[in-house]
Amino acid sequence: MRARVTIMPKRNVLDPQGKAVVRAIHQIGMEIVHDARVGKIVEIEIAGNDAESVRPKLEEICRDLLSNPVIEDYRLEFEK
Amino acid sequence: MRARVTIMPKRNVLDPQGKAVVRAIHQIGMEIVHDARVGKIVEIEIAGNDAESVRPKLEEICRDLLSNPVIEDYRLEFEK
Repeated sequence: MRARVTIMPKRNVLDPQGKAVVRAIHQIGMEIVHDARVGKIVEIEIAGNDAESVRPKLEEICRDLLSNPVIEDYRLEFEK
Repeated sequence: MRARVTIMPKRNVLDPQGKAVVRAIHQIGMEIVHDARVGKIVEIEIAGNDAESVRPKLEEICRDLLSNPVIEDYRLEFEK
């Protein structure tokens, strides 16, 4: 199975990469874009299909290894 | 509305960030993880709700601005 971890900057944290994307989009004339946020995505391939048995350990990995909980939020999803 | 662009390294391209994630996960004893790929996600907030009218321009932005088509694939989705 595959686990997909989406890591985004928290709403109240400044996101300079996102700001740069908005500026670049405006420069090519698409003014209807008013915000952008840039995050990371990690796709993890795992042997077996038992999502619930690996979830606690993966939550730990998301929190301690893949994200910075001070400035980022993560979301963990499974695909069979 | 919101557009979500997911940008992943192509399957046949080496992904050193992903390899580092697999190594770190193995080090904490989770051997059932056999691969990981690290990509980017860009969430773009757009005025209005007409996804089809902005799609061509956004595809251009994905191709020319947000991804490197030589080594990355992108996926564009809309959320109302």
